[in-house]
Amino acid sequence: MYYPEPIAKLIDAFSRLPGIGPKTASRLAFYVLRMEENDVMDFAKALVSVKRNLQYCSICCNITDTDPCRICQDKSRDRSAICVVEEPKDLIAMERTKEFQGMYHVLHGAISPVEGIGPDDIRINELLNRLTDETVQELIIATNPNIEGEATAMYLSRLIKPFGIKVTRIAHGLPVGGDLEYADEVTLSKALEGRREL
Amino acid sequence: MYYPEPIAKLIDAFSRLPGIGPKTASRLAFYVLRMEENDVMDFAKALVSVKRNLQYCSICCNITDTDPCRICQDKSRDRSAICVVEEPKDLIAMERTKEFQGMYHVLHGAISPVEGIGPDDIRINELLNRLTDETVQELIIATNPNIEGEATAMYLSRLIKPFGIKVTRIAHGLPVGGDLEYADEVTLSKALEGRREL
Repeated sequence: MYYPEPIAKLIDAFSRLPGIGPKTASRLAFYVLRMEENDVMDFAKALVSVKRNLQYCSICCNITDTDPCRICQDKSRDRSAICVVEEPKDLIAMERTKEFQGMYHVLHGAISPVEGIGPDDIRINELLNRLTDETVQELIIATNPNIEGEATAMYLSRLIKPFGIKVTRIAHGLPVGGDLEYADEVTLSKALEGRREL
Repeated sequence: MYYPEPIAKLIDAFSRLPGIGPKTASRLAFYVLRMEENDVMDFAKALVSVKRNLQYCSICCNITDTDPCRICQDKSRDRSAICVVEEPKDLIAMERTKEFQGMYHVLHGAISPVEGIGPDDIRINELLNRLTDETVQELIIATNPNIEGEATAMYLSRLIKPFGIKVTRIAHGLPVGGDLEYADEVTLSKALEGRREL
């Protein structure tokens, strides 16, 4: 005999999560065993609620509990600019800056031939549908600064420029607070390339 | 606006777990969002089940879904020896060796004056109650080889020796596969002290 069944099941459930191995899973399961019953119930409810009460916004494809999402509903926002991001997390990161007052579009991935993800596997068609009514004047592509993100940015730019919409890419360069000495060559050459007059 | 409420709640629930910070919690919550609904339901059920269906064995204080637990019920086991461990996880570790055929007692902690844990805060009284009927001949103390575990071992040894029961402590020494060069001084001196004739 090893663990009693209920705890074995919970260890198994935890160890299915990414980055959680069997040791951590058993530590977490034993922690749950000592948690207050109310807190455990809240945890279980939160799990179920994420699956049941969340959906994708029919406009921007972000995850939301109302459709359209709060951003798409917000009349004070600038409808002439759409910021395209890969994941809902990226949208949150952009929102934290409090700098961008436009709309968003969440692709839910990036084009990656290596992983077999093509343009039809991410929400590009939904984005094209939003560009038909001529309100949108600028598309800011904020996909990640890696191979997949760049490929997606290039693809979108070629696809959308013919619509007569300005397509921009967020800047690459040294992170604020970073150190020139430790910057990699690619970042440094991008920073040089993107230099601006003072 | 930041995260929609259901996902914010789940991030919060994950970040309450030990060793899981806000970044990992949000990564896990987004992972759950993409999991199959059935798997999420099973996870939620496992959480609830751990709190609802597990109890402490009335004999050995181990966690169990039946009372007495499977080990205490097992008639083939040797009732003359009790191995005392700190946590249910330690019992599992002992069982994995398949060497020990006796009974167990789980203390659920160790004496720690620094953290204010005294003999009455762990399951020592339950252990004493098991020693009254004279079946037990040996008590093997397998608390952790650290200050608290040693203090608990010393305390138990002084308390129980007057009952006429043999009290033993598991050996300290070099772990198998370990390296003499990297062993700390205390372990090495314990290994020397516990040397046996070949």
